[in-house]
Amino acid sequence: MTTITEANKTKARALLAELTLDEKIDMIHAAGLFRTEGVPRLGIPPFKMDDGPMGPREELHNDNWAPLYNTRDRVTYLPSGSAVASTWNRDLAHAAGQVLGAEARGRGKDVILGPSINIKRSPLCGRNFEYMSEDPYLTGEQGVAFIKGVQESDVAACAKHYAANSQETDRLEVDETISERALREIYLPAFEDAVKRGGVLSLMGAYNLVNGEQCCESKRLLDDILRDEWGFRGFVVSDWSAVKRTVASARVGLDVEMSVTPNFDEYYFANPLRKAVAAGEVSETDIDIKVERVLAVMDALHMLPDSDGDSDGSRPARKAGSYATLAHAQAALDVARESIVLLKNDADESGRTLLPLDEHALRRVLVVGANADRIHSNGGGSAVIKALHEVTPILGLNGQLGGNVEIEYALGYDAKQVVQDDSWQEESLENSVGSASDDAERAAHLREEAVTLAREYAAAGDPVIFVGGLDHEHDLEGRDRENIALPYGQDELISALLDAAPDTILVFVAGSPVAMPWADRARAIVWNWYNGCESGTALAETLLGRVNPSGHLPETFPVALEDSPAHAIGTFGPGLHVRYDEDIYVGYRYFSTRGVPVRFPFGHGLGYTTFTYADLDVRRVDGDVRIAFTVENTGDRAGKAVPQVYFGLEGTGEDRPAKELRGFTKVALEPGERRQVELVLPAAKALRYWSNEAGEYALAPTARVFVGESVADIRLTGVLGACDAADAEVTESVADVAITA
Amino acid sequence: MTTITEANKTKARALLAELTLDEKIDMIHAAGLFRTEGVPRLGIPPFKMDDGPMGPREELHNDNWAPLYNTRDRVTYLPSGSAVASTWNRDLAHAAGQVLGAEARGRGKDVILGPSINIKRSPLCGRNFEYMSEDPYLTGEQGVAFIKGVQESDVAACAKHYAANSQETDRLEVDETISERALREIYLPAFEDAVKRGGVLSLMGAYNLVNGEQCCESKRLLDDILRDEWGFRGFVVSDWSAVKRTVASARVGLDVEMSVTPNFDEYYFANPLRKAVAAGEVSETDIDIKVERVLAVMDALHMLPDSDGDSDGSRPARKAGSYATLAHAQAALDVARESIVLLKNDADESGRTLLPLDEHALRRVLVVGANADRIHSNGGGSAVIKALHEVTPILGLNGQLGGNVEIEYALGYDAKQVVQDDSWQEESLENSVGSASDDAERAAHLREEAVTLAREYAAAGDPVIFVGGLDHEHDLEGRDRENIALPYGQDELISALLDAAPDTILVFVAGSPVAMPWADRARAIVWNWYNGCESGTALAETLLGRVNPSGHLPETFPVALEDSPAHAIGTFGPGLHVRYDEDIYVGYRYFSTRGVPVRFPFGHGLGYTTFTYADLDVRRVDGDVRIAFTVENTGDRAGKAVPQVYFGLEGTGEDRPAKELRGFTKVALEPGERRQVELVLPAAKALRYWSNEAGEYALAPTARVFVGESVADIRLTGVLGACDAADAEVTESVADVAITA
Repeated sequence: MTTITEANKTKARALLAELTLDEKIDMIHAAGLFRTEGVPRLGIPPFKMDDGPMGPREELHNDNWAPLYNTRDRVTYLPSGSAVASTWNRDLAHAAGQVLGAEARGRGKDVILGPSINIKRSPLCGRNFEYMSEDPYLTGEQGVAFIKGVQESDVAACAKHYAANSQETDRLEVDETISERALREIYLPAFEDAVKRGGVLSLMGAYNLVNGEQCCESKRLLDDILRDEWGFRGFVVSDWSAVKRTVASARVGLDVEMSVTPNFDEYYFANPLRKAVAAGEVSETDIDIKVERVLAVMDALHMLPDSDGDSDGSRPARKAGSYATLAHAQAALDVARESIVLLKNDADESGRTLLPLDEHALRRVLVVGANADRIHSNGGGSAVIKALHEVTPILGLNGQLGGNVEIEYALGYDAKQVVQDDSWQEESLENSVGSASDDAERAAHLREEAVTLAREYAAAGDPVIFVGGLDHEHDLEGRDRENIALPYGQDELISALLDAAPDTILVFVAGSPVAMPWADRARAIVWNWYNGCESGTALAETLLGRVNPSGHLPETFPVALEDSPAHAIGTFGPGLHVRYDEDIYVGYRYFSTRGVPVRFPFGHGLGYTTFTYADLDVRRVDGDVRIAFTVENTGDRAGKAVPQVYFGLEGTGEDRPAKELRGFTKVALEPGERRQVELVLPAAKALRYWSNEAGEYALAPTARVFVGESVADIRLTGVLGACDAADAEVTESVADVAITA
Repeated sequence: MTTITEANKTKARALLAELTLDEKIDMIHAAGLFRTEGVPRLGIPPFKMDDGPMGPREELHNDNWAPLYNTRDRVTYLPSGSAVASTWNRDLAHAAGQVLGAEARGRGKDVILGPSINIKRSPLCGRNFEYMSEDPYLTGEQGVAFIKGVQESDVAACAKHYAANSQETDRLEVDETISERALREIYLPAFEDAVKRGGVLSLMGAYNLVNGEQCCESKRLLDDILRDEWGFRGFVVSDWSAVKRTVASARVGLDVEMSVTPNFDEYYFANPLRKAVAAGEVSETDIDIKVERVLAVMDALHMLPDSDGDSDGSRPARKAGSYATLAHAQAALDVARESIVLLKNDADESGRTLLPLDEHALRRVLVVGANADRIHSNGGGSAVIKALHEVTPILGLNGQLGGNVEIEYALGYDAKQVVQDDSWQEESLENSVGSASDDAERAAHLREEAVTLAREYAAAGDPVIFVGGLDHEHDLEGRDRENIALPYGQDELISALLDAAPDTILVFVAGSPVAMPWADRARAIVWNWYNGCESGTALAETLLGRVNPSGHLPETFPVALEDSPAHAIGTFGPGLHVRYDEDIYVGYRYFSTRGVPVRFPFGHGLGYTTFTYADLDVRRVDGDVRIAFTVENTGDRAGKAVPQVYFGLEGTGEDRPAKELRGFTKVALEPGERRQVELVLPAAKALRYWSNEAGEYALAPTARVFVGESVADIRLTGVLGACDAADAEVTESVADVAITA
């Protein structure tokens, strides 16, 4: 794990002593849209940053948002954060991070602006595709693995957006009222993990306000919690234009100001900061602290001359990285293969499921839907990249199935594609071509064409595959969706397809949940995410059964938007004040506790085999909770199970969710293979909760323990007894942990 | 090896008996730009063909040349035929063929229109980039391996263009006067190999005339030689519009007519053929022969219903193929790595060479030249493809070097890119933008900018890499170059660069030789070809020494065009009559025999290690000539040697070339490793020549034997004695072979 060492800090302090105030100030604000200024006379380079979590962004001009237009900034397109989380495989999160870090470093960057680890509070959030989960534990686990992977290439990850940036609507000025408990249990823990276990070297301060305070001005968030409690030694960079005042941000732990305009000298941390120092409103010490943090990170990344901070001089040269390589594309494929979620695959009366397709019996396939033939790497806001390649679903199906199967394609609906440009920074409007009646006529024509074909295919017993969903006109930075309905008339089309061809297989490429009013009628539903350069390959392999799907939902798919806690209890969206009144009951914590029906529950994901669970054993071992059980593959295909461990904390005297994710793993099993799984969870973490009464973290004395394949598919139930039920040594050890928590 | 069996022929004859005359005629002419008609009532499918040798071409409309514009026809971009030949590695030619076959089959094709195996007679030929070599043996060896690879996927290769299509100028009507000896020794043997050893299932009849006869009307070429002498059982398809008359082509072995216009019913083999049959000018038997050949190939490809021609019913289902896969991209990279030719790498006085670059010492690199930042998959004529991806040289350099080295880029010259369209079918004009004086001013500016930077880099000891060459405005179907000078003022730029930065490394991306008037002043020259989707990766790996170059020239690079035999002795280009007066003295056969100096000789290719050769042993063993010798890697890097065996035939009583390639292999050797190499060459092939006097093939009684690393770099010399010098058994055996030859 990359960390800031004492040697790094010593080196930073030594350099700091050589710097003039002007040089220091130039190091903590932008001198380009994605860089600070260096100090050439001391060999201090600029700090080069780049969007974003799915790959280093296309190269732009230093002082405007126009691209350079060349062939050298093409990169590997990685699966989105949602997809990475959906693997429930820490090794793959690590591999994705390794690719991102290597590519960022290969492109000459020092900081890559990811991962995005905000909690998905509402299905509407435009950046949900970047974010990992509605659950802080899953986000933390995948985030930590990803960050470690990134930083192996001597490039800093940047965990963003700190904190609670869970909506895009009015993000520049919205004030969120969030209870301390919700912050401590839901919105902050993934950042805490990123810092304490991931060793992340930078964080990005969010645009929004939390409880009346600008995130980039919050002593509580930036100093008390981040530095004092968590021990963060890296630096905090503002989101681009998130600093609003010079003095308020300069006096707290906001270290580097970035923004979106080219008047770099007029940034709050530029000339206005010089004036504030001259006026005595900001001390040079305040600035020194920031510069020292920046220099320490630079030294940790081996960016400084004579960066031989290691006492024995054994420090390696800075890693060079690489990008746009076949090895990276292969890693992207590995992730995509395990991220796809088989949501539904009902058997008919004879026990036959639609998936996997029997490729040797296939003669022709009808594919319907705009997302079959559409790329997604070129959109989304700051996550946009210029992909070296992107395999679409229809290319993947064709390429993998080969020439013995005829694939017919019908658009089915008009996605009215809007070419990606910088307008995501502002309000972006749907492209309206032609009149409304023209559009309706065209939609009816496209639908009728597809449905007629589907009817014919169904009559002949040939498969129909619909590939729809969202795109980066909907999963988009800077704008939340207005509802969770599928756009472009897809619901009407899907209903008509299911009428004409009841066995239509439904595939969705999207970054956030959609309503599925026809879901009960559909026999097979596959969820594909924005899945990187090999997205279509992984999808085809999954549909054909060459890959046994093992992705599980990192978020709840509600029946209706109004069922979601942020909408049922709290407030979301327009207005400058949003109340997180659902408190800690975010996502499945709400649905499972209140018994609200969902479309697909958190953790859900089917495969082409079945697993049984047995022999649960729950006990305390020293300061840990040990959960052991066996998993057996009872089907006829090799597959990967995702056993999930939920705790229902008890004995706290406060209201608690029925289930909270506390552990998971991924187990590959051959047909008939049985294996014991053992999860060892630190009690200090597994039993931790924020006590409203005490106003601090506490440990629950006991817990119900659930092992299942989703939060709603519990296979084993046990109880973790109180400490005093165990032997003396264990009690003592747990007591130690309780104290340090 | 895929072959037409007796079972295939039986099946074909049985189906033939069911067909009406109209159905038969519909099977032997186009019903789409790239397909024939099938006979649905008998389950006979259309025959689907597709360009071209570097990957299956983008999908077009059935009856016009406009693309379908979707994402599903993106394919793996393979290195060009020149590059494949340049590996001198049969396994890689086979691998390239495997990818092409799998991708063609994956795209649903039955016939892929490649490989292109015409002999490179002149450096000017617009399709030289597709063709393999000036040498028939190298072409035959690589062509056979390639064809076998293609046909493993149950898709027919199509060896083209039969015969002697060695210029594009006036290709639709040029008449070539070629001696029987030149045909038999130079222009036909690669086709003979393709048929006899490659088992190629189809050939394409060329546009041009040979000795007054249309290739697509030539009984001699299509029946006497191809069928009677070589035993070809597949079918011959015309080049697109190469059939000019109904009766003349119908009566000979031209089986399927394809053309470029959508009036399919009016093709010579459509309604006019019906009329000719009705008029008794063509017999139904003539048509039956063609249809039977088509059906036999279909059966061999498992295209027919109940194609269980194998008596035991064990025939496998037709292969499905696949395309646009990472595995195929990796194979393309494997080929590219061994195709790049290090032409020059002079040591300075201290023994230091410019290549490989010491990447750990690099801080910055200047890259100059339009081909560094340009893709080539999207041009060339029928070889054009829609690549899933293409790594340019500058992307490859950046991607492989990573972030520790700054790569600065200067265009250097303006390549005036013309967007590829269908105008290659006709005469294509250079795009002239702005006035001539504007152009000159811009050229001067670009040159000055690059040269100034180069001077600065040289002064600082930092590398300068020029990446220029040709593009598919010059290496282009349908048009030959006018000369071998580099276009776009590159010679002037290179000279200026060498003045400013004498250590400039020169890299050329091109498909045919260029004059290098500054060559003596350049210390390092690298030849990269059009090298497929991973071209830039392989180039970067080579420049950095991660790959030790092992490509060798498959053609002579002359000093001046006028030195080339076609231009020094024969005629080439405009005019409807071209004389191949250089006879068999094509390429190095001319240069090495006449002692004409060359820029780089045939077979030439350097590496980052050195090999020594010893212990030559030449003897006859049964009907073979056995050549044995040792090769030792005397350098400090692992590398691959390409030992080449040339024969100088003696005792024929006729004029013979000083050296003719008769064998080669590729040997991987670790530093210090020594290995014995044994080549066993059938005497019937190694000693074969066309006797002008006898008017038939004969065997030379003796030969001088040369082993070297190029035709001009001979390391070992031996003599193959006459048969009677060996023992009786051997003599007898050789006599057998001589008789069958």
